[in-house]
This record gives sequence, structure tokens and C-alpha cells, in this order.
Amino acid sequence: MVKYKKIAQEITNYILDNKLKRHDKLPVIDELVVDFNASKSTIIKALDILEAKGQIYQVQGSGIFVRDVYIPGKINLNRPEGLSRTLLDETIVSRVVKVELIKPDATIQEYLECEPNEDIYMVQRTRYIKGKIHSFETSYLRKKYVRYMNEQIARGSIFTYLEDNLDLKPSFSNAFFQVKQIGDEVGRFLNEPADNYGLELINQFFLSNGAIFDYSILWYSSKHAQFFVPSNFY
Amino acid sequence: MVKYKKIAQEITNYILDNKLKRHDKLPVIDELVVDFNASKSTIIKALDILEAKGQIYQVQGSGIFVRDVYIPGKINLNRPEGLSRTLLDETIVSRVVKVELIKPDATIQEYLECEPNEDIYMVQRTRYIKGKIHSFETSYLRKKYVRYMNEQIARGSIFTYLEDNLDLKPSFSNAFFQVKQIGDEVGRFLNEPADNYGLELINQFFLSNGAIFDYSILWYSSKHAQFFVPSNFY
Repeated sequence: MVKYKKIAQEITNYILDNKLKRHDKLPVIDELVVDFNASKSTIIKALDILEAKGQIYQVQGSGIFVRDVYIPGKINLNRPEGLSRTLLDETIVSRVVKVELIKPDATIQEYLECEPNEDIYMVQRTRYIKGKIHSFETSYLRKKYVRYMNEQIARGSIFTYLEDNLDLKPSFSNAFFQVKQIGDEVGRFLNEPADNYGLELINQFFLSNGAIFDYSILWYSSKHAQFFVPSNFY
Repeated sequence: MVKYKKIAQEITNYILDNKLKRHDKLPVIDELVVDFNASKSTIIKALDILEAKGQIYQVQGSGIFVRDVYIPGKINLNRPEGLSRTLLDETIVSRVVKVELIKPDATIQEYLECEPNEDIYMVQRTRYIKGKIHSFETSYLRKKYVRYMNEQIARGSIFTYLEDNLDLKPSFSNAFFQVKQIGDEVGRFLNEPADNYGLELINQFFLSNGAIFDYSILWYSSKHAQFFVPSNFY
């Protein structure tokens, strides 16, 4: 990863670790140069990246200020690092419903941009926070990239496993969402009547070369569907 | 606006005007230098901004590719330019329900970060696409910044009015959303029973100095709540 992206990530971690809030001031550029051990031009590039990503705003002659990067209980859709890295204050327990090797149907082929004869891992999990059901997830992972998967791995963070064990780093993602009736299957897992409404969040996860390796469908019951998106005009 | 942000915006417009799709290739940097009449370093900065914003991806040795910037019928929450600039292929008709000068209650004060005695324009509008109700919006605008508002202005794009007539340029925004029952008032405007579920989208719009000038509540009936968020890992 290029240096300024790495520094951008470190500044994000600094904001999260110090639980900085909207309008909190960051150190001036000369201090950031020292704190993050980078050149002035690298710091300036990193700040431009963070501004474009909606994490800071810079006011000429006044300083660098933090935006809403982390809000307790809400999921920042501009930080697609997976639920366990987004809801920092919560302990998320995953229960594995199913891990299976399948062939993709037409919908899966479309979302994964893959061939009909490819091997796909289907992983279904329920997520719990404080013992209460939070969400129900079905992930489709291309075996071509995710070479191995089992129940034990799926109980933890799949993304951490991919990075640490398969050297597979997600690069970017799409999130699509809509309000829908949850239906029979999801209702059974969320412990709600099938005609209740919930939020369906579909994710596509891309590698740096543009290949899609993961297509996931997440269902949130209406009371847990709390999201935000910080964005920018330009 | 700094040059590379302006160029980033021009490249976005190029993507939109040419209806470029996911994985479509952009011209190489040397061509972009000519096409957009900018230096190589400005083009590179603009591309880094667009990458951070989730509009392109760059593959070493292979090229610059477009991501999902525009998808027909879906609202890109990372392009907060207002509904009429987001749903490009549709003609949006606004019907004004109410324009009033009010004092803010506690919730409005919190979202606008304003004082209890400030003057606030409340603007309520229904939005129609192809004659069908699309959404119901209540906006709270601080008179301190939005010095004048009336029904005629509210029938058009408020943001275009602010930029063209008041030289007021939104800089960044927060979108919060959740699935909720629409209730009596919203149900009346959306022509749906009060116990139907919909998506409530709350926006805060900021000026470049970090002041909030607009707090809006948008209600979408479940069939029109189609959103996406392209984002990045880093």
C-alpha cells in the first residue's frame, strides 16, 4: 500500500482510538509530520484522502477537524470493514448456520461476475450482540480466491482470516440496500413474523484488480438497522 | 475550489455524461492531461480523490477503471447532490406543502447545532416521478445562512437556488437512515397506511467551515427506497 494511504489509515485509527467526535480538532500539519513520522507532502495527501472519504474537514486558516467517523450503535457504511470492526464497543458473536460448497445460480453469477461452473462457498451466519439477535447473513465466496472455508473459520471474522491466512485483502465494496418484508427463512432466524419489514443490505467486495470475491446478503431487523453515510460535495 | 477537486468533479461529469459503467476503462493519464487541460500531478491528485470517493479504481500496469457511479433508479448516497441531480434519467416534480418561519425545538436545535431563538425556515415538499409519489421531505434551513425562501423557490431545486442566488455552497453531509413505520402524517402524503414501513433518511448539510445550514428528513415508501454506497477499504 502506498505510504499516504497507510498514513490515512493510521490517522483514522487515531481518531477511533481517541474517540474523537464531530468538530474535534486534529493536531496541525507540522505536528502530524512528527506524530506519524511522515513527510509534509505525505501528510497533506493523506488528509486530502480522508477529506474525500468524509472523515475530516479542513478550514483554511483555522485547522483540521474531525467528522462523524464513529457513532455508537450506528454502522458507518463508508467504513466497510465488517461488522466486528464497525461496532467497536460491542462484542459480536457469530453462530454458523451452514457452510456449503455450491454452484452459483443466475443471481449469484451476476453479483459475483463469475461463471456457472465455479465453486462457491456459501456461508450462513446469525450475529448476536449482548445475546440478542442482530442480523442474519448469507455470504457467497468464490473458491478461486477464498481457497478454504469451514465452520470454525466462519465463527470468527472471515475478513481477518482472509488477510492473515490467505493474504487476500479486500480493496473496495458496493453496498445496496432496500426496505423489504423479511419473509419466512429470514423471519425464522430473526425471530420475527415473516411479514415484518427489515433492511436488506447487499454487499459486493472487490479485490484491488476489480475482481469480486464475496457477495453477501445481510438482513437486519428494523430495530437494528441504524446506518449512516458521511459524504462530500465535489 | 482547488484545481484538483475541480478536475475530479469534471471527471465525474465525464463518467456520468458518457454513462460509463463498472469496469469501463478511462483514458490513460497522458490523455487525461490533454482532455482536462491540467498538469500530470493535478490529474494524479484528482484520480486519488476519485478513488477515495469510490468512483474509480486504479490497477497498476493495467489502467484506470470506473466503479458504480450511477445506477438507474438507485440513489448513490456518496453523491449527496440532491434528488434531482442523483436520479438523472427521471423528471422530479416537487409540490410544496408548506413554507414557514419557525423557532427550532430541541431535536432541530441538536441537528442544526443552533440556538433556540434562531429563525428557521421549515419547507415541506412531496416529490413525484412520472406522476407517482416518490418521497416526502421536511427541511429545516437556518435563516442566518438561507436568508430568503418562499414557495416558488421551493418548487425548484433548493440547492441550485442557494448556489446561484445566495452564493451558498454545501460542502459535505451526513446521511442517517433507518427502517420505521411511516405514521399518520407521512402516510397521508405517501398515500399509504400509517403502519406501513418505510425508510427515514435524515440529512445534515454542512458549509465548508463546518456550520450546519440544513437538516432534512426524507421519507421513502419501501418500494422507492433503493440506495447504494460505493466505499473503500483504507
